[in-house]
Amino acid sequence: MTGRSAIGIDIGGTKVSGALVRDDGSIRHRLQRVTPHRTTSPDVVLATIVGLVRDLLVAAEQDQHGPSPGRSGTSTRPDALVSAIGIGAAGWVSSDRATVVFAPHLSWRHEPLQERLAAILELPVFVDNDANAAGWAEWRFGAGRGEPNLVMITLGTGIGGSLVVDGRIQRGRFGLAGEFGHMQVVPGGHRCACGNRGCWEQYASGRALIREARAIIDTRSPVARELSALAAAEPGGLSGPMITQAARGGDRTATELIGEIGQWLGVGLANIAAAVDPGGFVIGGGVSAAGELLLGPARESYRRCLPGRGYRDEAFISAAELGNDAGVIGAADLARSALR
Amino acid sequence: MTGRSAIGIDIGGTKVSGALVRDDGSIRHRLQRVTPHRTTSPDVVLATIVGLVRDLLVAAEQDQHGPSPGRSGTSTRPDALVSAIGIGAAGWVSSDRATVVFAPHLSWRHEPLQERLAAILELPVFVDNDANAAGWAEWRFGAGRGEPNLVMITLGTGIGGSLVVDGRIQRGRFGLAGEFGHMQVVPGGHRCACGNRGCWEQYASGRALIREARAIIDTRSPVARELSALAAAEPGGLSGPMITQAARGGDRTATELIGEIGQWLGVGLANIAAAVDPGGFVIGGGVSAAGELLLGPARESYRRCLPGRGYRDEAFISAAELGNDAGVIGAADLARSALR
Repeated sequence: MTGRSAIGIDIGGTKVSGALVRDDGSIRHRLQRVTPHRTTSPDVVLATIVGLVRDLLVAAEQDQHGPSPGRSGTSTRPDALVSAIGIGAAGWVSSDRATVVFAPHLSWRHEPLQERLAAILELPVFVDNDANAAGWAEWRFGAGRGEPNLVMITLGTGIGGSLVVDGRIQRGRFGLAGEFGHMQVVPGGHRCACGNRGCWEQYASGRALIREARAIIDTRSPVARELSALAAAEPGGLSGPMITQAARGGDRTATELIGEIGQWLGVGLANIAAAVDPGGFVIGGGVSAAGELLLGPARESYRRCLPGRGYRDEAFISAAELGNDAGVIGAADLARSALR
Repeated sequence: MTGRSAIGIDIGGTKVSGALVRDDGSIRHRLQRVTPHRTTSPDVVLATIVGLVRDLLVAAEQDQHGPSPGRSGTSTRPDALVSAIGIGAAGWVSSDRATVVFAPHLSWRHEPLQERLAAILELPVFVDNDANAAGWAEWRFGAGRGEPNLVMITLGTGIGGSLVVDGRIQRGRFGLAGEFGHMQVVPGGHRCACGNRGCWEQYASGRALIREARAIIDTRSPVARELSALAAAEPGGLSGPMITQAARGGDRTATELIGEIGQWLGVGLANIAAAVDPGGFVIGGGVSAAGELLLGPARESYRRCLPGRGYRDEAFISAAELGNDAGVIGAADLARSALR
């Protein structure tokens, strides 16, 4: 049955977002919860998801039949309200889209999420990596529309990645394809949460931006005066958006810091181009809010690092279009398309 | 018509190999020519290929009808003798498998090889990258049999690569996927023929092995005594096979040099695993003759660099099985399977 909405859930490190998503990718309702702390039981995370889905089902029923005050839950069968539930999780998902193998920000280790949720919710459930969900959304409805071979990079605290080829997410043999952020770009470089050194995400991410900004503030150099003042004024300390704002306001050091992240972004994109040769890259995530301050230097270093430049066609590098909604839109649409 | 043989041609930097290949991957006849120098006209390379194909067609006809002395060429229609011709070229091939975009060792720039050969030979022709052909052969008939998600790495002077997913070579948007050798692993590292610095193939290839061996010989260190003597005794200077032989004979420095290449091999394989997550790697090419002297250290460093090790399944790393025949076998079989 086409035309029915699907529910997309995006489980991030700090919040769980849910949305009722139409089959054209537009959002009818959206809700949000705080992500349970990583030390809580897997059951708490499960209960959070179930609560979000049930509230979205109530919203879907009210859309169909109008509000029914005083009643909790729905009286319509769930599968008459939505077609499927898609989960995008910040973690490693098995290639059969059933199990979250490992989620660093949650308490999941080999969590059979599909089975448990489907039993409770009586709806088809598909689990995916959050970066896969976002990449799928940009490919279907966003900046990657029409490109048969697309890579999406999500620049947040770390780096998320996904690859769509001929209308299919490339999951790899064990479900772990697209972990571009853990490609080593500097031998013996900065330590990464994955246990290695020199991973790309230690050089081209929000974490890298803040580390470098702090390093220059620590030098007490006059060039860091504005950043230093910003950091001192904010109880939470320096954040990525603060650096971006300083760069937008013309601060040269902030602009250079973002430019350096952009240069490393370009290095990694050239590495990905060597490996999988996409037709385009879509760059999303919080850091991408810096726009051309980031993407300009990225394109420049990409062109400098691309093997065979001058003898070959080159992929486009574009800003994502769907912002924070990409995760829920993609999770819902991936679930819907898995039904077909 | 199944059961007919196909012709595979492998155009390398130094020689052009051709073979009549049965549909089980076995070889009925093989022939070889010297690769025309890169300064000669594209027409000379074309004539070399045409000559090889015609000689193989004569061999195919003699298989069917017995020898016919005194007659040159064939009297049977070519398409009654073989089903198709596959070309594997050491160069960049467009994603429609028609044109060699750029071949560093030949004089081809945007050479419409498919069209020109098909017109002359009156047979279906498919052009592919030589590493794709070798990878396909190992996946169909060699060390990668049965693995749905396979990466093959050819360690020769440089590094060739290919990726097979669910029975299809992944060519990328512009036909250039699998150029793993040009992923940057050392910022500001050794210069590469591609114009960049720090490419993987400058650290894990035959060229790297010889460069490092020469460097240690130049130090006049006592540890290089045996390698030094070998190099002095050979008019052509030190070669990869000489280093391998010294290592096999127990020379510790030669063993260490090959081990270092293996370690860099493992670093790059872990990078590829992060990006595309294959179920297995097959390692071929001249350098792979070092066997476990190379693959042991490669597996060790792969396991040390693999993101999420301990929480995930790991790909196998195996030696190739088809040796120098992989190119012709794969080119022939790719052409045959393109007909279906």
